[in-house]
Amino acid sequence: MRRGKPTCHRKFGEANAILAGDALLNLAFETISGIRPAERAVCILCEISTASGTHGMIGGQVADLEAPARKKTLAEHDFISRYKTGALIRASVRAGAILGGANTESLAALTRYGEAIGLAFQIADDILDVEGTTEELGKDAGSDQARGKATYPALVGLEASKARARELVEMALEALSSFDERAEPLRAIASYIVQRKS
Amino acid sequence: MRRGKPTCHRKFGEANAILAGDALLNLAFETISGIRPAERAVCILCEISTASGTHGMIGGQVADLEAPARKKTLAEHDFISRYKTGALIRASVRAGAILGGANTESLAALTRYGEAIGLAFQIADDILDVEGTTEELGKDAGSDQARGKATYPALVGLEASKARARELVEMALEALSSFDERAEPLRAIASYIVQRKS
Repeated sequence: MRRGKPTCHRKFGEANAILAGDALLNLAFETISGIRPAERAVCILCEISTASGTHGMIGGQVADLEAPARKKTLAEHDFISRYKTGALIRASVRAGAILGGANTESLAALTRYGEAIGLAFQIADDILDVEGTTEELGKDAGSDQARGKATYPALVGLEASKARARELVEMALEALSSFDERAEPLRAIASYIVQRKS
Repeated sequence: MRRGKPTCHRKFGEANAILAGDALLNLAFETISGIRPAERAVCILCEISTASGTHGMIGGQVADLEAPARKKTLAEHDFISRYKTGALIRASVRAGAILGGANTESLAALTRYGEAIGLAFQIADDILDVEGTTEELGKDAGSDQARGKATYPALVGLEASKARARELVEMALEALSSFDERAEPLRAIASYIVQRKS
C-alpha cells in the first residue's frame, strides 16, 4: 500500500510495474530534450541522470539492499539517505535553478537548501513510520520498525531525530536568506517536510 | 540463460536486476549529456528517450505481454517487432548520423537502413529459435515455439521468413547506395544480422 492505494506491482503485475518505472524514467529524459537553450538542457540532463543513477538514487538503493538491516550505523544510514532520497531532491532543486539561469552563488545556496531538505525528508519519513497512523500514512505504520530496518529514531532516539530534522530545516531556510519573496514556495516546502502527516 | 550465461536476475536476484537495468538506462543518458555541441546532444536525447519509451521499446514490450500468445496476427507481430526491437536499432543508427552531422537526405537514407535491419534482426531471431542449437544460441533453442509464441516462421513459414529477411537486407543495402566505402561497417552489420548463428 502507498498513499492508501495498492502499489503498481500488486495491481498490474510485476512485469508491467517494471516497465512503468522504465517508461517514466524515459519520459523524464524525453521531457528534458524539449528544454531550450540546449546548453541548459544538457546541464539538467547531467544533473538528473547522475542523481538517479549509480552515483545517486540507485547507488543508495543498492547500499540499502546490501547492508544487513539491523547492523547499520548512523553513518551508513546517512549515506543511504543522502543517495537514495537526497540526491534526486538535490538535483530537482538544482535543475530548477539552472533552468532559471541562476548564477554560481545562487546555485550554491540552492544546492545547500536541497541537501538539507533531502536529509530532513528522510528523517521525517522515519519519524512518521513511528508516530503516524496507518490511515494517515496510506501504508502500514511501523513497517520499517517491524522489519528491523535501521531508522533515525532507532539509531539516535525520537527526540534527537526531531531536533535534527528541525535543525536541517533551519539550515535550509538559512541557505535561502539572500533570496526575496519569490523563494517563498521553497521555504514552504522546507517547513512542510517536517510538519507533514503522510 | 543468455549467451551461455545465467541471466542477471538469476545470478544477482530480481531487485538488483531491476536496479541494474535502471542504472544502465541512466548511464546512457548521462553519456548523452557529455555530447557537444549541445544542440546535437538534445537531438540524440530525443531520439533515444522516445525510442526506448512508451512510443518505442517499452510500448512494444507491453503489447507483447498483452497480446494473447497464440492469437497474434502477422500485423501484430510486425508492430511488436517494429517497437520492441526495431525502434532502438533505428534510433541507434539515427543517433550516429546526427552525431556525424548528417544532412536531411543522408539521415533519411540511414533511417530507412535502420528500419530495415531492425525488422530483419527480429525475423532472423525467430528463425534462429527454430534452426539454431542451444549451444550456438547460449539459450534454449525452440523456447519461443515451446511457449507457443507467435514467430515469423510460425506465421508465414520458414522459407518465406528467410526470403523476407534477405529482402530486408537488400533494402538496407539499397538505402546505403549513395554512401562511399565509409559505410562498409553498416553494410557488414546488415549482412551479419541474417548470417549470424547466435
